[in-house]
Amino acid sequence: MIGAGFGGLAACETLAKIDVDVVLVDRHNYNTFQPLLYQVATSGLDPGDIAYPVRAYGRAHPNFRFRQDDVSGIDMVSRSVRFAEGPTLTYDFLVLAAGAGTNYFGTPGAAANAKAIYTMEDAIAVRDVVTSSLERAAAHGEKDGELTVLIVGGGATGVEMAGTLAELRQMQFATQYTELDPECSAIVLVELQERLLSAFHPKLGAYAQKALRTRGVEVRCGESVKEIFADRAVLGSGEVVPCGLVIWAAGVGSCALTEVLDLPKLHGRVEIGSDLRVVGHDDIFAIGDMAALEYGEDRHLLPQLAPPAIQEGRHVGHQIERLLAGEPMVPFSYKDKGIMATIGRKAAVAELTHGIRLRGTLAWLAWLGLHIVLLLGARNRASVLLNWAWRYASWRRGSRVIAGG
Amino acid sequence: MIGAGFGGLAACETLAKIDVDVVLVDRHNYNTFQPLLYQVATSGLDPGDIAYPVRAYGRAHPNFRFRQDDVSGIDMVSRSVRFAEGPTLTYDFLVLAAGAGTNYFGTPGAAANAKAIYTMEDAIAVRDVVTSSLERAAAHGEKDGELTVLIVGGGATGVEMAGTLAELRQMQFATQYTELDPECSAIVLVELQERLLSAFHPKLGAYAQKALRTRGVEVRCGESVKEIFADRAVLGSGEVVPCGLVIWAAGVGSCALTEVLDLPKLHGRVEIGSDLRVVGHDDIFAIGDMAALEYGEDRHLLPQLAPPAIQEGRHVGHQIERLLAGEPMVPFSYKDKGIMATIGRKAAVAELTHGIRLRGTLAWLAWLGLHIVLLLGARNRASVLLNWAWRYASWRRGSRVIAGG
Repeated sequence: MIGAGFGGLAACETLAKIDVDVVLVDRHNYNTFQPLLYQVATSGLDPGDIAYPVRAYGRAHPNFRFRQDDVSGIDMVSRSVRFAEGPTLTYDFLVLAAGAGTNYFGTPGAAANAKAIYTMEDAIAVRDVVTSSLERAAAHGEKDGELTVLIVGGGATGVEMAGTLAELRQMQFATQYTELDPECSAIVLVELQERLLSAFHPKLGAYAQKALRTRGVEVRCGESVKEIFADRAVLGSGEVVPCGLVIWAAGVGSCALTEVLDLPKLHGRVEIGSDLRVVGHDDIFAIGDMAALEYGEDRHLLPQLAPPAIQEGRHVGHQIERLLAGEPMVPFSYKDKGIMATIGRKAAVAELTHGIRLRGTLAWLAWLGLHIVLLLGARNRASVLLNWAWRYASWRRGSRVIAGG
Repeated sequence: MIGAGFGGLAACETLAKIDVDVVLVDRHNYNTFQPLLYQVATSGLDPGDIAYPVRAYGRAHPNFRFRQDDVSGIDMVSRSVRFAEGPTLTYDFLVLAAGAGTNYFGTPGAAANAKAIYTMEDAIAVRDVVTSSLERAAAHGEKDGELTVLIVGGGATGVEMAGTLAELRQMQFATQYTELDPECSAIVLVELQERLLSAFHPKLGAYAQKALRTRGVEVRCGESVKEIFADRAVLGSGEVVPCGLVIWAAGVGSCALTEVLDLPKLHGRVEIGSDLRVVGHDDIFAIGDMAALEYGEDRHLLPQLAPPAIQEGRHVGHQIERLLAGEPMVPFSYKDKGIMATIGRKAAVAELTHGIRLRGTLAWLAWLGLHIVLLLGARNRASVLLNWAWRYASWRRGSRVIAGG
């Protein structure tokens, strides 16, 4: 099992109940609750709140082992996983669940100058840039555009980041950085398509756009980003936007491991069949953001979100159980429960099944409840609840630059 | 005001009430609750739990400003503070409260290979080494001494670190790192004097020594450290101790700022008179760990702890009030309320005034209560309480390696 994300842990949970030895490998010894990374990036939560130690999980399962290490390759003939150093691991079945990387679509300067929000390190880096730039402007005077944040991509991640950042800025200028002129700061959200949240109903996209504008976000639909420099971005229209930070929320691409593996690929992801096995490899499964499954009658790819990863993980666990029992494979069936995105206090959108759509306070409450329930670990749940309640009641949040922490 | 530690914030609090403009300068934009740093170093608390954003403090005080910056020097003729970059700050009165550095007493290899626990960065670095070494040993097999921690200094910091680390290890080997042999790990506490906790009554020192031995700590009194390498330490007796981590808890020395300032010094600290002003400088005060005040009939130096720093900070605030009103200076008088150190669950020592000495559960409860009360910020108090209650009830704690976070 490679990867301790949503998919990897779901597969482990299922496999822990049957008579197999499970070895989970990840480069970190914690699971990151990625849907709340943007709150770490905006100082709303501490990194520890959304990190769950993998070994704490393993304690309850004697057939579970963990190894914190960097996978350097896989030898499919000898059925073994290689690492940068240390002994190799052999396997009977291998589950690839290592996630994704960032897809910059070849935009010049993006890899060097834009920041993604896919990992804990990403989120901490964004948090430190946001707060440091405010402190620097307060100490040395405001430079043109230094406090402007450009967000590329108007999907759920971009919308959540823009809304939260806008509320954070609004509060900080009013109470903590009173020496700064709010006019010197801007949050610009650039989306290639003509509307925000293209995965949601147009009405919800329009609601999000209005809610963001109310919060002072400059929304630019039908606009692209041509090149990114350290202190500015050039838009498709040729306009130059001076900015101190570019956040890349325009899509996830293939992860480093996918690129080194000699496996069939589809859109930069590992190609799997309906049984979740890698095409042409009977003993290798791939799930979650790392895998590409053409699904349904229209052969669309499943979205790179937590719910498909979790369901695929559980399915893989049962598939391995069937293989060991000599039973036939069962094709994976995805149960879509809907998608959600939050914009700010009492503002969120939810697109559920059966055409049910929520927006505003109700969607926001549903979002809060769902994320608390899904968080791993009772301590983390209590800590996140505490932070949220505190923030809501006092309408403020910590603004911390903790170097390396 | 240079420094947002206990002394600096106490002085700010007093000055905020009078008609002066206060500018607080610190290289971080948060206050660190140093007495609990060792709990961050042992994964018991998250960094955010003991960091309090300085600007949140300043919100309530319109005459208070903050600047996050690195002081590079002071020009006493023009009464201005210089920074690495950006405009200088002029002052009518200057309060130096920048804390201390680590005193390695010239031990070869100590600065390069030993880790202190004085700043948040220190604590996070220790936490990451402790957990990484466990993960590395679990993945690649145990190397001789890799899991051994050598702690230099048997004062409160060394004892607290040894006791907490011993409990953490005991729990981790039993539940999370079951593949490792506990025999491969050791915690060695080296103290130059013949007993631990020399600032406390001998009975409390003996209690601490016994309590640490019960927890599996190897206590070596009357022993020194001659040289420190990356993978081993050489003791005064010539014995070589292979170890993966050396924690330096043998004393604090002068801070970098003290060294560049052209001010009278005593034992590497800025020399101040009983009015807390730097000797020979009527407009510069120095307080806390950074300052050296010969106190009492025996002219001993005040200890480098939070209580003297806080009391000195308040006193400086009142002194400046008096100077502005043309009133005479009042000599500082230290009110010693006692000292405490915790060893582990239900084990602590406290040396209070009037010869009152506590140890065991009662001292531990007193320690818990006092530290919760002294923590800055209701959110931090609630979060620390939650973490402690959680840990106590479940007798486990998170083991996290969060790179850069």
